[in-house]
Amino acid sequence: MTRLRVGIAGLGTVGRGVAKLFADSGSRLNERMQLVAVSARNAEQDRGVDLSAYRWIDDPVSLAQDANVDVFVELIGGSEGVAKVAVEAALARGAHVITANKALVAVHGSQLAELAERNGAKLLFEAAVGGGVPMVKALKESVAGSRASSVAGILNGTCNYILTEMENSGRSFEAVLSEAQSMGYAEADPTTDVGGFDAAHKLTILSSIAFGTRPDYDHVRIQGIERVTLTDIRLAGKLGYRIKLIAKGALSDGAVEMHVRPALLSYDHPLANVGGSLNALVVDAEPSGQLTFIGRGAGEGPTAASVASDLIDLAEGRAGFAFGKALAQLAAAPRGTPAERGRYYLRLMVQDRPGVVAAISDRLAHEEISIESFLQMPVHDGPAVPIVLTTQTCARSRVEAAVKAIEALDVSAEAPFLIPVEHTGSRWSRS
Amino acid sequence: MTRLRVGIAGLGTVGRGVAKLFADSGSRLNERMQLVAVSARNAEQDRGVDLSAYRWIDDPVSLAQDANVDVFVELIGGSEGVAKVAVEAALARGAHVITANKALVAVHGSQLAELAERNGAKLLFEAAVGGGVPMVKALKESVAGSRASSVAGILNGTCNYILTEMENSGRSFEAVLSEAQSMGYAEADPTTDVGGFDAAHKLTILSSIAFGTRPDYDHVRIQGIERVTLTDIRLAGKLGYRIKLIAKGALSDGAVEMHVRPALLSYDHPLANVGGSLNALVVDAEPSGQLTFIGRGAGEGPTAASVASDLIDLAEGRAGFAFGKALAQLAAAPRGTPAERGRYYLRLMVQDRPGVVAAISDRLAHEEISIESFLQMPVHDGPAVPIVLTTQTCARSRVEAAVKAIEALDVSAEAPFLIPVEHTGSRWSRS
Repeated sequence: MTRLRVGIAGLGTVGRGVAKLFADSGSRLNERMQLVAVSARNAEQDRGVDLSAYRWIDDPVSLAQDANVDVFVELIGGSEGVAKVAVEAALARGAHVITANKALVAVHGSQLAELAERNGAKLLFEAAVGGGVPMVKALKESVAGSRASSVAGILNGTCNYILTEMENSGRSFEAVLSEAQSMGYAEADPTTDVGGFDAAHKLTILSSIAFGTRPDYDHVRIQGIERVTLTDIRLAGKLGYRIKLIAKGALSDGAVEMHVRPALLSYDHPLANVGGSLNALVVDAEPSGQLTFIGRGAGEGPTAASVASDLIDLAEGRAGFAFGKALAQLAAAPRGTPAERGRYYLRLMVQDRPGVVAAISDRLAHEEISIESFLQMPVHDGPAVPIVLTTQTCARSRVEAAVKAIEALDVSAEAPFLIPVEHTGSRWSRS
Repeated sequence: MTRLRVGIAGLGTVGRGVAKLFADSGSRLNERMQLVAVSARNAEQDRGVDLSAYRWIDDPVSLAQDANVDVFVELIGGSEGVAKVAVEAALARGAHVITANKALVAVHGSQLAELAERNGAKLLFEAAVGGGVPMVKALKESVAGSRASSVAGILNGTCNYILTEMENSGRSFEAVLSEAQSMGYAEADPTTDVGGFDAAHKLTILSSIAFGTRPDYDHVRIQGIERVTLTDIRLAGKLGYRIKLIAKGALSDGAVEMHVRPALLSYDHPLANVGGSLNALVVDAEPSGQLTFIGRGAGEGPTAASVASDLIDLAEGRAGFAFGKALAQLAAAPRGTPAERGRYYLRLMVQDRPGVVAAISDRLAHEEISIESFLQMPVHDGPAVPIVLTTQTCARSRVEAAVKAIEALDVSAEAPFLIPVEHTGSRWSRS
């Protein structure tokens, strides 16, 4: 049996983890393949694993082009630049590519899948989504006999860690983020994570597979967690909800709608108790029913394990199409901004003076919005009083109109904060 | 492209579900295969799906032997009898077999896998475990690059439904079971479910795949839920625990230990909030980390969806060895009854008279067992008073010795009830 020859480009956290798996003589990886070459920026750095048996190739693109490498493992990152050039070079010569690069797959997935198919190569990316949790395989293969109607997940461990820590420790977003940065859990520039962009990359990939549509990153509506305050977390908690950054894709009248946004989850929602840096995915499909997958969403071990499972799938002949179907069979995701209905959470920071609550209530009533719960709490510092409320089911456009009218009252100390209340197994529905 | 010709034997709940998937022209099943023949006891019964296009073969063994059937789908059930004969007949002629028959695979798995390998046939059984939850594929393929140290699951929906209903409604085991029987959720003879045997069949299969050992049903230690009372559920709840029937396999010094038994789970255990008829599996593996899978554990749709995913794997060339590795590579599971350590829950029903608590405490102290919590509640009927306690970590043999000494006190109105407290991600360890 010929053993697949593997080259790894990028020896950061994940690359190191994959190299360690190859160094473990008992690992199943070594039965069917061998690591032959590696590439990284700094050849001198000690990575805690002996790399001396492998060829060192400085330029990742040269590694991708090397005729003695059958599988190019791209762990460099970034949707553009050298990662993209190297992946394209590998696929163009018919070498298989395994990558953990969610941005690359989300933004250029169709083009790369096309290149792979044209050259008889496989493109696999279990490690790009959900760390060690086999979300890609579950959607591609296990849900293959069913029809998915929605996927909803906690796909960014940094955001989930920050929200969990805020709730548990009672510290502010800024304080927890700063601590996470000093511990290396968050990047110096945290925008990709806290802004929801990383989760949007992952959602793009999962939605494509779940709904059989081409990956369409530009179609994701993205809202990060930067405006979630401790007040939101506490008051939502008093109303029976936890705030999570939810990445959700749903089929609605044949169109795929994708959102990343903070949302309120009641405590019995399958994602409500997924804490810390865990990742999770809830798939609604028929006839399989709702499926939930939970595990470590990042880190050396979990992500390397997903790279390894892709390598084994490849070696054992199980690797299929990048997005589960041939590119020609993937529908272009129909666009549009459908009217959204649901329940909403609204936090207002208002001046503490008579008549304010009456005026707010009046603006909501004018849009025929029924209030489910309303909470005003005494404030200990600052002139603004938080008022939070959840609505009964209504059109989002109505809530937005009411918010506009409330802003016109000129009683708000800051912009109102509006996020949805997520339902178990719900879909977005059109009005 | 040749389309696989499928025959279904058994048109009960699951068989009907699979037939409905074939009747759905948009289903992915029809791209690669076609249903050609069916078999069931009663040809006249209306099953809510048009079967007139398929050949009807009365005898399932004849269907299995039919040269025009490439894939034999066995949905008859039972570890012996016609199901076994038919599966053997199909494999012997090199036809692939897909089955939901956990008893058959647990008891005769090695022999059937051997027959399949010898004849170049595939044997798949995703539907045998966890209904619609892809537990088999997850262990065979996703965890393939990692090493599993334990699998722990809620694998019997009937038991989980009964325990959940007892807690929620405050009714007795007998009352809830009786209701479940009248609604068709439990069999007239409930022994297979409530006695833990069904969960043991499923655990046998999962342990074999997770640990790379031959399926070894006789090695599972089985305790059912028949002795769990409302008192246990209420008092465990006061101590911060929920009672679940846990099926757990763990690697311990190279030996595989398998138990099915009721256990106390603290509310933050990943299985504690899996309610009703849901099934779930928690896999501890390195380096992937802990993985949790939750979904519908039974029923027409979920189980049919798992049969369909096996069919698609087969049609798309992804089907591997029955237990993830060639039979020759599976180790014989080493036997032995290792010394078990852990924390334990003990419920005593004792006579309400002075000195009883002191005598019990004395017997526990004599075995050097430290008590973590102790609870005696007033009783409103009957002469016996429930006393429940949880121990700190100790050898099970010590607890059993103490229980024996307590029984010798002649104060117990019924046999003591002893079950473990389950830890998150814990393994059984040897003393």
